[in-house]
Amino acid sequence: MNFKKPLILISNDDGYRSNGIRTLVSFLTDFADVVVCAPESGRSGFSCAFSVVDYLLIKRQHNIPDCEVWSCTGTPVDCVKIALDQILKDRKPDLILGGINHGDNSSVNNHYSGTMGIAYEGCMKYIPSIAFSSCDYNPEADLSHLRDYVRIIVKKVLAEGLPKGVCLNVNFPKTEHFAGIKVCRMGFGSWTREVECCKHPRGFNYYWMTGHYRNDEPSATDNDQWALEHGYVTVTPSKIDVTDYDMLNKMKDWESL
Amino acid sequence: MNFKKPLILISNDDGYRSNGIRTLVSFLTDFADVVVCAPESGRSGFSCAFSVVDYLLIKRQHNIPDCEVWSCTGTPVDCVKIALDQILKDRKPDLILGGINHGDNSSVNNHYSGTMGIAYEGCMKYIPSIAFSSCDYNPEADLSHLRDYVRIIVKKVLAEGLPKGVCLNVNFPKTEHFAGIKVCRMGFGSWTREVECCKHPRGFNYYWMTGHYRNDEPSATDNDQWALEHGYVTVTPSKIDVTDYDMLNKMKDWESL
Repeated sequence: MNFKKPLILISNDDGYRSNGIRTLVSFLTDFADVVVCAPESGRSGFSCAFSVVDYLLIKRQHNIPDCEVWSCTGTPVDCVKIALDQILKDRKPDLILGGINHGDNSSVNNHYSGTMGIAYEGCMKYIPSIAFSSCDYNPEADLSHLRDYVRIIVKKVLAEGLPKGVCLNVNFPKTEHFAGIKVCRMGFGSWTREVECCKHPRGFNYYWMTGHYRNDEPSATDNDQWALEHGYVTVTPSKIDVTDYDMLNKMKDWESL
Repeated sequence: MNFKKPLILISNDDGYRSNGIRTLVSFLTDFADVVVCAPESGRSGFSCAFSVVDYLLIKRQHNIPDCEVWSCTGTPVDCVKIALDQILKDRKPDLILGGINHGDNSSVNNHYSGTMGIAYEGCMKYIPSIAFSSCDYNPEADLSHLRDYVRIIVKKVLAEGLPKGVCLNVNFPKTEHFAGIKVCRMGFGSWTREVECCKHPRGFNYYWMTGHYRNDEPSATDNDQWALEHGYVTVTPSKIDVTDYDMLNKMKDWESL
């Protein structure tokens, strides 16, 4: 028998001091070795961005019990890359986790999410990867009631793995009592009125990114938006291969243009 | 008859002064009204990142003939959002273009690419969108021989549109004479040895993101990597909906966990 614990690498986009990452670590340390490498401060909305231009610094931190913690000056994806390449070196993790994010990464937010960026990066390194996000945007929210679901999902993926090129986007509704798990597709929605213009005291305009989310499939009952609104924990298997094969087949005549 | 020219919004991730964006504009101004909103300097590797934390500034520039140019302090996706919301206001573009990028955005680079971030953002706003990239990384490379292909593709998409949730990732091989168009899927590859550790004169370590690309499907002949190596212009229809439906169906038993 092999008594070695699995190794789990965790990052997030809210920073290594966030409540969500501390809570996630606390769910896992009884059965796994956990290493955290996370941004030194918030990197929400960083998607799969990595640092082409800037150099990076990493620093050992000691803010989470039973866990080796590093902060990094870069993006969430940088954190995964530098952890695999420099911190863990020859110890390949059995699983990579992003989160728990303070905020919803369902529907099109999948594309903007630094938490999903972590999962995609892990997946592109052929390591099973999961992003966990809560629809509760309060950075002080108590997330301890996510424990059973997180542990079930993590243990299942550790035991069974995930196919090449697929990672999981897991979102928790803002509720105390979950209705169960829904495995569902990503919904479609739009961000509107995304920019707010302000006048600086010295007279020039500057702009804040903001926005209002609109569900563009209000009658659909098979997507993550519907499931979250109805109290379900959503699990959306998300692909690295973004090719639209239906469209590809329809476009074959372009080859004779 | 309607003699109004189509309106094309262009951004990139190499900055508003780059050779690639100037070349792209020059291909289009005889038949389209073109507005550029692009980062004030390079934003390679920015993916779909947008600015959650920082404020943005925009500035009118005059460096490209026959074209309204704005620079923006933000990311490529910020440029699209602020152009739609503040610069164009009620003038909805008929088409959004990213590029021409100085560097390959085929295979998994799709996920890291700020040029593709522009196309995804346009697509999420339900506007037909295309990313153009050249495998020639030289920022001074003469891209004028891309003219015929760019114009054919742009005119076809202006005439026919694109389905909801699909944008195009177009890559040009580094060659003078193209073998034609291949409509093909995204290939799989990996970046390895991605982090280089350096010693600062003051004694601490710092890190640069670098990397070596490995084609993980060396015998495949149906993907963008093969086609680019064989001199083809690649067109990969890319989806907003990243749900893996095969996996979703296999995971339905998770709902009884």
